[in-house]
Amino acid sequence: MKYAVIGTGAIGGYYGARLANNGQDVHFLAHSDFDVMKRDGLRVDSCLGDFVIQNPQVYSSTQDMPKMDVVIVALKTVNNHLLPELLRPIVGPDTVVLLIQNGIGVEEDLEREMPGLQICGGLGFICSTKVGPAHIHHQDYGALTVVNYSAHDQERVDTIVRDLTEAGVKVDVVEYNFGRWRKAIWNMPFNGLTVVLDTDTQSIVNNGAARSLVKTIMMEVIAIANAAGVKELTEANADYNIDATLKMRPYAPSMKVDWDHHRPMEIYYLYTKALTIARRLGVPAPTLTMLEQQLRFLAR
Amino acid sequence: MKYAVIGTGAIGGYYGARLANNGQDVHFLAHSDFDVMKRDGLRVDSCLGDFVIQNPQVYSSTQDMPKMDVVIVALKTVNNHLLPELLRPIVGPDTVVLLIQNGIGVEEDLEREMPGLQICGGLGFICSTKVGPAHIHHQDYGALTVVNYSAHDQERVDTIVRDLTEAGVKVDVVEYNFGRWRKAIWNMPFNGLTVVLDTDTQSIVNNGAARSLVKTIMMEVIAIANAAGVKELTEANADYNIDATLKMRPYAPSMKVDWDHHRPMEIYYLYTKALTIARRLGVPAPTLTMLEQQLRFLAR
Repeated sequence: MKYAVIGTGAIGGYYGARLANNGQDVHFLAHSDFDVMKRDGLRVDSCLGDFVIQNPQVYSSTQDMPKMDVVIVALKTVNNHLLPELLRPIVGPDTVVLLIQNGIGVEEDLEREMPGLQICGGLGFICSTKVGPAHIHHQDYGALTVVNYSAHDQERVDTIVRDLTEAGVKVDVVEYNFGRWRKAIWNMPFNGLTVVLDTDTQSIVNNGAARSLVKTIMMEVIAIANAAGVKELTEANADYNIDATLKMRPYAPSMKVDWDHHRPMEIYYLYTKALTIARRLGVPAPTLTMLEQQLRFLAR
Repeated sequence: MKYAVIGTGAIGGYYGARLANNGQDVHFLAHSDFDVMKRDGLRVDSCLGDFVIQNPQVYSSTQDMPKMDVVIVALKTVNNHLLPELLRPIVGPDTVVLLIQNGIGVEEDLEREMPGLQICGGLGFICSTKVGPAHIHHQDYGALTVVNYSAHDQERVDTIVRDLTEAGVKVDVVEYNFGRWRKAIWNMPFNGLTVVLDTDTQSIVNNGAARSLVKTIMMEVIAIANAAGVKELTEANADYNIDATLKMRPYAPSMKVDWDHHRPMEIYYLYTKALTIARRLGVPAPTLTMLEQQLRFLAR
């Protein structure tokens, strides 16, 4: 199978390099890293063992790529308006697009732009950072949850899961809405609050007032998810997430990293889109609304 | 009438100096400013004209003061646990205590500690800063709203109003709960949000998302006030406050000034006490609760 990686950063570069390192045919799209990647390869310093993809197949435009069987998209969602143009040269009716992106509703919006496209979501549970051009530091975790949004070719989805697993990635497959909303329970409080309060996850859960606020926000997310049909998520999931965060090392979620580096924050898919769903379903979400408004102010 | 000023800072110092400058018998309590005030007097640089109170009656302890007819308390509320000890030597059954302090419920708590005490609230609409020891800079405004909480001696309250008015202070008198809650409509969004968002009032109201959040918070304050019996406050008061803030120069509310100077913030009387009332009355206040939790986190 031909794999493309659109967005060869900390996340896309990591999963793509894992596949290439296991002998898969992987084609990388790169911009600023193109020359270094061509010359020195794609370097991954990983807690599971370091490796380098020498002479990777690297492109500066998807127009130079062949048609793909699988396209892994790991761009920041603030660039999702570029997706149709980037994808058109390399996707066909048999291609499966795997969106390893944050938030709620990315698949829905892409499908509206490209009707009939076979789309899966990929939820990365990974600590990984780009530390230099074509140089990734994978610190911890690495699992990927795959959720199927609109891929009718189940055999191909199974093959992707098998290829990733054989490449050393722990993969599980869950129902689309369940997977996206389950991750939102953690994402929605911690991404925004670490920015607004200028802190890390550990400091938040160690403070009584902030931990209580996290719980309130999580319960709003769960209420929206329940109204959206995901009945399995309950208060127990909130408590589990808080407990797990208490045990994690201090962590800066991706939005905090973006904010600290003066990059645009993924407010739309992490908050706005979910709030649109909440409004449509008539679920009150006052603290999520307030958090989104505070982030929009900071991003002004 | 004998006036005492407890808390000779930007606010208490200003109103006390106005009274002294008009010939009233004013006794000031000072701590760190004691020596400078004794030597150089109390200096007020005012937009209405500068003046100095030479040889003020200044004390380092209320135990050295005579009994007072009126005690103006202008301490930060974070020090209110000291009030009974500070007041006992100088108050009697005829004394009226005027609490020029921020927030909701200061009178109630003091009355619980000192049953039978005659208490009024004073709501200052003033921009004033202490720029050095015994040196106050009064930049703008200066009006004082007096609200009667438990003073049965109406004649004495009237005399205080007359004395202040004759000293050049614009005074109006309104019903206790109405006055306190009307001011809370402005205080509660802007004090907390300028701290959490690290900004000023003007930047907030000029941003659509933040202005919308301010409106939400104000509507929660109004809902609590309505449930507490203050029926006259409506959405029009929220719109009026937002509009007035749009026309004001950029302003740092007192909580922002305290935060910037690494002083304790008045979270209890500006937020916690009002939220206790909301809970007792069964009024939901999710955004005020979230703001209080964010402030408690920052103050950790």
